[in-house]
Formats: sequence, C-alpha cells, structure tokens
Amino acid sequence: MASKESDFLRELYQSWSERMAANPNMTIDDMRDVFDEWERPTKEPEGVTYKSDCVAGVNAIWALPLDADAKKVLIYTHGGGFVVGSSSSHRKLAGHVAKALNATCLVLNYRLAPEAPFPAQLDDVIAVYKKMLEKGFLPENITMMGDSAGGNLAISSVLNFRDKGLSLPSSVIVFSPWLDMELTGSTLDENDATDALVKRSVLEAMAGMFLGENGSATNPLANPLYADFTNFPPLYINAGSEETLLDDARRVHSVANKAGVNSMLSVVDNMQHVFPFLAGRAVEADEEINKIAVWYRGLAS
Amino acid sequence: MASKESDFLRELYQSWSERMAANPNMTIDDMRDVFDEWERPTKEPEGVTYKSDCVAGVNAIWALPLDADAKKVLIYTHGGGFVVGSSSSHRKLAGHVAKALNATCLVLNYRLAPEAPFPAQLDDVIAVYKKMLEKGFLPENITMMGDSAGGNLAISSVLNFRDKGLSLPSSVIVFSPWLDMELTGSTLDENDATDALVKRSVLEAMAGMFLGENGSATNPLANPLYADFTNFPPLYINAGSEETLLDDARRVHSVANKAGVNSMLSVVDNMQHVFPFLAGRAVEADEEINKIAVWYRGLAS
Repeated sequence: MASKESDFLRELYQSWSERMAANPNMTIDDMRDVFDEWERPTKEPEGVTYKSDCVAGVNAIWALPLDADAKKVLIYTHGGGFVVGSSSSHRKLAGHVAKALNATCLVLNYRLAPEAPFPAQLDDVIAVYKKMLEKGFLPENITMMGDSAGGNLAISSVLNFRDKGLSLPSSVIVFSPWLDMELTGSTLDENDATDALVKRSVLEAMAGMFLGENGSATNPLANPLYADFTNFPPLYINAGSEETLLDDARRVHSVANKAGVNSMLSVVDNMQHVFPFLAGRAVEADEEINKIAVWYRGLAS
Repeated sequence: MASKESDFLRELYQSWSERMAANPNMTIDDMRDVFDEWERPTKEPEGVTYKSDCVAGVNAIWALPLDADAKKVLIYTHGGGFVVGSSSSHRKLAGHVAKALNATCLVLNYRLAPEAPFPAQLDDVIAVYKKMLEKGFLPENITMMGDSAGGNLAISSVLNFRDKGLSLPSSVIVFSPWLDMELTGSTLDENDATDALVKRSVLEAMAGMFLGENGSATNPLANPLYADFTNFPPLYINAGSEETLLDDARRVHSVANKAGVNSMLSVVDNMQHVFPFLAGRAVEADEEINKIAVWYRGLAS
C-alpha cells in the first residue's frame, strides 16, 4: 500500500490535468509555470548549498552537499517532455540524490522545444560534458542522470558521446524515462486510468514539438529503444507501477540487458511518474534514493 | 543609469503584464504560478543550506547560511498582494539577505487571500512569533522582514504584537511595501508609465481579495499608514524610483519618523518593485543588501 504522504504527487498531477483540460489553449509559458510546481512535493534536502552557473553556455544550478566528494558529479537533465521543467523544478530532487550519493550535481537548463527542437538538447549536453572534462572531471567520476524526457536525454547523450568517440561516464541513472517517441508501450493504455498526469495526448503533443521538422521518432538518439547499447555504462532505471511510461522503463532495461549492459530496474508499487519527487516527504522516494546510493557505491567496489 | 543586468526584472514584469492582459480571466492558480517566476531574477546565494519546516501550523523554509549566528533570525513574509507569492519564490532572496546579515531566516508560507482574507495573515504571523519565543529565540534577536504586501504584513504584525502586549522584535526591514489599501499614493499615477508590473487595477483586485467582507481599508492593521507607530522598533524601508508604490514607502517613513521611530528610507534610482530580487545578478540589489547589513549591524552597536 502506498504511503499517505505519496498522495501529494498524485493529487498535484490530478490538479495539473484538470487545469490543462479546462484550458486547452494554455500557452507554453503558462504550461512551463504549471510544471515548475514540480518542486512542491520535494522537501528541502538539509545540508546542501547551491550555486548558479553557466557551463558551455548552458545555465545550470550546482547542488553541493556539505562534505560531498567534489571530484564526483552527477549531470542532471530534468524532465518535462523536452518542453517544460527547469533546473528550479528539479533543484531539491537533485540535491537529495547528490546528498545520498555523496557527490555534487549540476542541474542543467538545457534548451527546450518547440523553440529549440531535436537535437538542440543533445548539443547542449555534449557541450557541457566536454567542458566538464576540460575542467578536469574524470569520466569515471561522472554520472549522467535524468527523469522522464530528461532520462531519455541522459541515455541518448551517452550514446552520442560514444558515437563521437568520447570517454564515457561511469554510470547512468534514470527515473521514469520517456524513450518511445512512437508511443507503442503497452502501459500507455493499461495504466491510463492510474497515471494521473502522463496521457497519450500529452506525449503526442510533446513528441511533435521535440522532433520538430528534422527529428525522427525512430532515430536512436531521439528514441533510445532503437539504439545499440554496446559498451553502455551501468544503468539504473526506475518507474512507478501506476505509470503509463512503465513499459518504456521495462523495454530499455531489456534492450540494455541483451547488449550486455549492467542494468538494474526498480519498479515501485503504486507510484506515479517520477515518484522520487517525493523525497523528504514520502518513504517510497527516500527508500528508492537509498537504493540508488547502494547501487552507485557498489559500482566503485 | 541602471545596470544592464537590472533589465531582467523589468522585462520579467513586462512579460507578466502582457500575459495577464492577454488572459484577463487568468485563474488564481495560474496567477500564482506566474508570480512564482519571481525566483528567476535571483541567483543562488552560495553557502546557504535550507530546511523545510512547519512552525505553529505554518509551512516555511529555513535559509541557513553557513556559520550564521543561529540565535538571530529574520522572519520573512513574502510579497504578492496577499494573494500570490510563496516561500519558493522568495527563498533565494531571503538567503541573500540572511547571509549578508549573518542571521538565519524563516520564510513563511502564510495563508493567502481570497481563500483566507484579513486577518488570517496576521493570525499566522503572530502564531509563528509566539512559537519562536517559546522555542527560546529572544525578541532582540528577531527581525521582521518582508516585501510588497509582505512588507505591510511585517509592519502590521509588529503593531499587532505590540497591541497584544508581546515583547517586540529588534527591527523591521521592508522592501517596496504596499501599505495603502485606499490607493491614494501620488506615485500610483506619476509612475504608472515606468512601473512594469504594479498597476492600480491589479492593486484594487488584490485589496478586494485581501480585505474580504470583514476587513477595512482604513484599519491600521490592514493599512499601517493609519497606525500609531509609538514604540515601533527601528525600521528600514526601501523602494525603487520607478515604482507606483514609491509613495507608500515615503509615507510610512514620514509617519514612523513623526512618531519618533528610528526609520531609514533608501530609494534607488531607476529600480522596479522589489528590486532586491536581482541579488547576485545586478549591482543595485547587492549594494542595497550590503547597505541593509551595515544598518542592521549598526543597531547592535
């Protein structure tokens, strides 16, 4: 049974769905403001300081847990269908994960669609990654991390780094990744009644804005379910059982496994999309983040 | 001449004004989301940690600068016409001020109108203040602080504490206070062309929601320009020269001065409403916050 505290996220999503249904012509600016409410479920992680920065032209927030290992960094690409979400909406979530992993975290405000369609997001992330290597961060101390569309971007960026011949990060962690731009996952319909936010119509609209005129729904860098995962670093994937995107998590786990990747899938019962947003509030999120920390530490040993 | 960086706040306000004009039936929820963009001008203050809390039933965020004097606290009541704004929109601003003053800061999510009209806000703040005294904070180590409507609330709360026989905080700091619920200030019209956000029509709507059925625009606890400032603690007031609310700042300074209060008024040329939101971005905000720190330290000596 889900904790009472976890209702907060479901109710937040329900309120967004109702507001979007009541205002079908909602502007992109208004929708971005609604999704910035994503910060609400997350309690402030204690003992974390922050710093505004601009890395390779990309605005970002550093989350700096006190006493974190400054050599280790998580590069976090936020969710929001490549259209909404921000470093502000994800600051606290990133802070919780960084603290648990005893690492620093750079939360990127990469360019969003429709103003900047595919591959602008990949271009921003690889520019940041190269700049981090220039600054002296070692690939083995870098983890790519993201949720939802940002989980796609974390994975596709590593594929992009590999294809460009760069040394790869040590690991990739994704929450509720949205990968399938063709929207063929079985849970899109099976979990339509339980997922309070992510509906086929929303995904269709966002995929259209993301892919724009030049993107393809089957390009492995837009849809990593089509990718070759050879030599991909260890991958941690989670999802909630109530999600329409659950099947994306399962399928990328399967694809990665078949390619010999060290892949871990964690599906948590009765949880909504990107339930780690409940960090500090609901036990399910805190336990999941602890589980990720154990996995992360295990990679080094 | 204003710094180029300070244009950020004016342009943000212009964008809000355009969006509200284009959507005259904007819901309260949507308007709250728009005003939560208030966090955007402010850079992260470095070396500050945060903690979510609930004090006397009021949700709040602690801003805890590293090495701050934990005995000293600023109780911060955010602006937004008593209708919008949040501890999230003001977290970074509060962090900058707390850091400059070497104090901790408690940023309150007090109840908002129209759901909770006057005097719900005063009730929340006095409950928090009593709880802080119970927790062992000394009145001489407490400063009440706020911006815009929250500047009103900082001042009216101290009047309320005094009327209820409580020991008073050591000082009160207000940014661009909105005090006059009758909207009689001369700058409402004089600065209508230069203020990118605060227009008479917006204030009228917010005053109506705030006062509700039981409030009066001439009640000294809703409109401190009608208050007796006898025994009021030292008061720091600032405003921007471009503001429609400039006259509220000038008038409360005059009223307080006449009652023998140690009152300081700082008007900064070419600045918009609550220009300290530009902390970490524009020199005018950083200089103003330094000036407040000098004034605050001077009180103790």
